[in-house]
Amino acid sequence: MINKILIIGCGLIGSSILRAVSKKSIAKKIFVFEKSSSNISKIKKIKVPLEITKDLKKIVPEVDMIIFCTPMSEYERIILKINKYIKGKTLITDVGSTKEKSLFLIKKKLKKNISWISSHPIAGAEMSGPEFGSSSLFLKKWCILIKEKNCNKKHLIILKKFWKKIGSRLAIMDSKKHDIIFSITSHLPHLIAYNLVKTATDFEKKKKFRLIKYSAGGLRDFSRIAASNEIMWRDVFFNNSENVTKAIDLFINNLKSFKKDIKFKNNKIILKKLIETKKVRKKIIKLKQDINKPDFGRN
Amino acid sequence: MINKILIIGCGLIGSSILRAVSKKSIAKKIFVFEKSSSNISKIKKIKVPLEITKDLKKIVPEVDMIIFCTPMSEYERIILKINKYIKGKTLITDVGSTKEKSLFLIKKKLKKNISWISSHPIAGAEMSGPEFGSSSLFLKKWCILIKEKNCNKKHLIILKKFWKKIGSRLAIMDSKKHDIIFSITSHLPHLIAYNLVKTATDFEKKKKFRLIKYSAGGLRDFSRIAASNEIMWRDVFFNNSENVTKAIDLFINNLKSFKKDIKFKNNKIILKKLIETKKVRKKIIKLKQDINKPDFGRN
Repeated sequence: MINKILIIGCGLIGSSILRAVSKKSIAKKIFVFEKSSSNISKIKKIKVPLEITKDLKKIVPEVDMIIFCTPMSEYERIILKINKYIKGKTLITDVGSTKEKSLFLIKKKLKKNISWISSHPIAGAEMSGPEFGSSSLFLKKWCILIKEKNCNKKHLIILKKFWKKIGSRLAIMDSKKHDIIFSITSHLPHLIAYNLVKTATDFEKKKKFRLIKYSAGGLRDFSRIAASNEIMWRDVFFNNSENVTKAIDLFINNLKSFKKDIKFKNNKIILKKLIETKKVRKKIIKLKQDINKPDFGRN
Repeated sequence: MINKILIIGCGLIGSSILRAVSKKSIAKKIFVFEKSSSNISKIKKIKVPLEITKDLKKIVPEVDMIIFCTPMSEYERIILKINKYIKGKTLITDVGSTKEKSLFLIKKKLKKNISWISSHPIAGAEMSGPEFGSSSLFLKKWCILIKEKNCNKKHLIILKKFWKKIGSRLAIMDSKKHDIIFSITSHLPHLIAYNLVKTATDFEKKKKFRLIKYSAGGLRDFSRIAASNEIMWRDVFFNNSENVTKAIDLFINNLKSFKKDIKFKNNKIILKKLIETKKVRKKIIKLKQDINKPDFGRN
């Protein structure tokens, strides 16, 4: 059991960690540092023993583990605040969706000899805010731990235990590989969802056709992802801009080739493409990355 | 009540109509014409009174309504078969996802003075086959009826009643408008889903990273749509190629502009875009085009 944990930033992810840590009795005491007063009043309604703190000077030297759950663009500001108080025994982690740029910043800004091992739980929802958190959000979901050179081995063991107790499946990789993989499986899909919804609304305005009302034929699926938190996703796109840009280019090439296949009625090629991608769904379900119900079981 | 109905092609949609017609007692007798023997044995297991027929010569002159539920590329072959037997009293409809090209073909190939009023129920799933059908598939979903010049008014009234009894919400428009609207709300999203999954698998092969296993971060949503029936979707893309091609171009323009916003860190523009598209999700839920549960309620 960890003695004291400090969660910095308590939105959807922070409050889910809070709930899970409490439910699984992972820490004796949980502190929460949150700047939004509207979030604070929502956190107070969560039936979990915790202490909301504004006093980093007092709390930071006391805690064994700090978890950054703010948008990545907040890291620098908070690092500069805690640098004065942080001690060598404390393990810091974060749950940010991109790693290379933030670890570069952390190395530059964080006080020397303080250990930060980055985490990325692959879990979330389109809703943001502490009221939507859930102790089971991470259950059976991947959590990627970033192992950099000179990583504190003792802290890595503690962090592994922490996520396992919360219910995550662990994978370890370096920040470079992480950012490439998630540029394709997560950042590109989100970016596409935003732009597809934008294309539909642009079209609605221009043509004066009401078309959003007919979105059940496909668009509605994308609109869920396109409803994700804008600050978080701006940070992701900016932080992982090189990989994301490459992913966009690959995708546009595929789209253009598909457009040609349609134009020239390349029957065999189109069918082959459609059949191949169909198989991926089965693989995803087999890998337990989605539920095996038609239409996500939503109807 | 309709006396006799013939469903031609009994996969997911056909078998859902079959179930709904039976449940709501819409017809005294239901005939099913299906060419796949594997589908026929599945249809026999559905607990609904029906007669599977191969004898179009006998059945077609008898029935009051024929519903084409085959892929659109089958229409011509079947029209040429039934032309000899069809009578003026019979109302024909279909459930195809595009309208202009198929109605052009129908006008050219169908025997004169036979009335075909096209329908498009906006409902489906990524699974295909009669075993996945459901009598509630169309409940509260839009069904678009295509009103062309010289449409048989009496038949239109019958068709409206038919879909209403099945549980659909009706909208009436011409084939041109239909094909434009659904090129954006349905055909483009499907095409994008196929190409996104293809981009991920291409990347996996090239980089030798296993990334599909991390698809819970976004990709999995697209993989569901990309698992839809390949014959049906090839037909859609080929039949609506002009509108779909224009939709691809609009979308690529949006993607390229987003890429620039990322590259040049256009903070305000990106945030504005992300916030605007977020609102669309709320609109879609308000319009009852999707359920109001985080993550489609799947977890």
